[in-house]
Amino acid sequence: MIQTGIAANDRIAAVRHLLGEEDVQAIIVAPSSDLRYLTGAGGHASERPTLLIVPARGETMMLVPRLEAPRLARDETIRLLVWSETDDPYQVLATSVAFPGDGSVAISDQAWAAVLLGLQRSFPTARFVAASPLLRRLRMLKSDDELAALAKAANLADEAFQEVMADRFSGRSERDLASRLASMLQERGLEIGWGPSVSSGPNTASPHHLTGDRVVEEGDAVMLDFGGALDGYQADITRTVHVGPAPADFVRVYEVVRRAQQAGVDAVRPGVAAQDVDSAARSVIEGDGYGEYFTHRTGHGIGLDTHEEPYIVSGNTLELEPGMTFSVEPGVYLPGRFGVRIEDIVAVTDGGVRRLNEAPRELQIVR
Amino acid sequence: MIQTGIAANDRIAAVRHLLGEEDVQAIIVAPSSDLRYLTGAGGHASERPTLLIVPARGETMMLVPRLEAPRLARDETIRLLVWSETDDPYQVLATSVAFPGDGSVAISDQAWAAVLLGLQRSFPTARFVAASPLLRRLRMLKSDDELAALAKAANLADEAFQEVMADRFSGRSERDLASRLASMLQERGLEIGWGPSVSSGPNTASPHHLTGDRVVEEGDAVMLDFGGALDGYQADITRTVHVGPAPADFVRVYEVVRRAQQAGVDAVRPGVAAQDVDSAARSVIEGDGYGEYFTHRTGHGIGLDTHEEPYIVSGNTLELEPGMTFSVEPGVYLPGRFGVRIEDIVAVTDGGVRRLNEAPRELQIVR
Repeated sequence: MIQTGIAANDRIAAVRHLLGEEDVQAIIVAPSSDLRYLTGAGGHASERPTLLIVPARGETMMLVPRLEAPRLARDETIRLLVWSETDDPYQVLATSVAFPGDGSVAISDQAWAAVLLGLQRSFPTARFVAASPLLRRLRMLKSDDELAALAKAANLADEAFQEVMADRFSGRSERDLASRLASMLQERGLEIGWGPSVSSGPNTASPHHLTGDRVVEEGDAVMLDFGGALDGYQADITRTVHVGPAPADFVRVYEVVRRAQQAGVDAVRPGVAAQDVDSAARSVIEGDGYGEYFTHRTGHGIGLDTHEEPYIVSGNTLELEPGMTFSVEPGVYLPGRFGVRIEDIVAVTDGGVRRLNEAPRELQIVR
Repeated sequence: MIQTGIAANDRIAAVRHLLGEEDVQAIIVAPSSDLRYLTGAGGHASERPTLLIVPARGETMMLVPRLEAPRLARDETIRLLVWSETDDPYQVLATSVAFPGDGSVAISDQAWAAVLLGLQRSFPTARFVAASPLLRRLRMLKSDDELAALAKAANLADEAFQEVMADRFSGRSERDLASRLASMLQERGLEIGWGPSVSSGPNTASPHHLTGDRVVEEGDAVMLDFGGALDGYQADITRTVHVGPAPADFVRVYEVVRRAQQAGVDAVRPGVAAQDVDSAARSVIEGDGYGEYFTHRTGHGIGLDTHEEPYIVSGNTLELEPGMTFSVEPGVYLPGRFGVRIEDIVAVTDGGVRRLNEAPRELQIVR
């Protein structure tokens, strides 16, 4: 496979190059996956602003609270702007940085609104825009190291699914099943930042059900949506299983979703628009008369964030390129009855597509 | 104790009352502790905006992605504005809501910057301000239920500290100790959203050290900063222990910090300014000649967030009131040598102060 992504040490130079191309004066990045992508350490957003500032020209800086400075002082390529507890951090920034040009200033999407309001107050003439249209051009294309981490994370999630299937489902609460699955993921080295989400019986008809106290019983569908991070790179897989023999109406919907998922994956190759993957999956479900019950997009990009660009959704004309990674996860949700979703992560390759998840997609009957 | 805080079901009415008083047209709240405070369910911020809109006059609304609607449709007091995957959610909001007045529009501090940029685009004449100056007036004053949850969370953290002290420290990595402590907290029902942070030896001189692979040895100081949430309400405690007999210079600094922490707690009572608690603790440390090594504020409020208002910092003239809860956590950090911090959560009472943490503050020697 051609090396498509940018290696870790070259990313600040790459973003600086993009700033010049796009007439953006600077990018300001708060603790988030964006910061981790650019510097290797993401940190956690808090009420004390920490901000990386990469200008189109000039030195890279980091605005840091004084108590964080000891551990950030090691990187000599970044100039620290240290603010103390009684300072206004945005004023400290304004004494060292100006945005006098016409170009916009990009702010990382996940920065707090309070941070953007502080910046807008201290730089009243700057025009702030979201950083994602810029950063996605780098982050969407994974390097070999990133692909390896995503593949390994997917593989560990697949293993956890195999393990949980051997467990007894009936008589256990959604919460108990989620907790067991979390342990299976953690034992394999995945760091859990969300979920697992477990829904059962009629709850499976809500695509984003909150795992609750409902006790699973014979005859239920159970939807498991889970993952975790390896070196920051996320896994995300969904399987829908059935407790005991499945009735014909469930099997019919399951097979529609399975064919739709396969059609979505089969549509993936370089040069295809993201929305065409959505329509490939959607047309199978529509063809079987369930179109109105497929209430969400077909997928989302994945990397340092569980949800990132590219989004596999109608209207997204972005052309797929080798190194892009995203979910293909059609679903059908019949209110009051049951829902089915099957989700795998795939990577676009030079020749087409590679599935990163390989847990069985055939309907699995559990106890 | 007088009931000072607002009970859960009365909070939206209370915030609406404040909007009228302060000439704010509406408050817009993203998934966060603010949303949990107002509605009982916080959710997680994602690339799909979910926003609670409480106008000064008129009905409460929630902008929700279509796939979240099934589980949010149960609350009949909130009108759902549902957007589909191919909609611009901010335009959907703009078709139902207007901000024609002169008053500002408050946005929750932890909303994503991308959300604020979307709102600013769809409501170009609205003047957005941070919601925290408004919401803190409610959130700072805890109800009896909130105080009970905070006290219980603190108590569970105290228990975990007692348990970890019986463990062997020397020969174990910071990461291993943090992982053991995390298990002890989780076994007691605390939900871990951050840390535990464990630093050892010279690493203790960095107040916000990232737990690493350093192996603890005899003669080390070890700083443990940890907590977790019970029903969303946070615990946060720091203790610094010594592996084996402590030398005189360490004991001297430890005792300065202990007296400073006691002086800070002793200064807490209704009517005292937040900054006076800071200066009570700081003056002890300054009096012993370590002032320049106490590099952070004395404390932070705590509740649904680990860090929230009121901040116990120089310049904060806010008068303490019964029902406020915050940390008192002075520290001294000697670069290249060691650091000491002692942190407890306290609650302001009618009569003065109540400590929520009761783990021993005397220097503990561990193996």
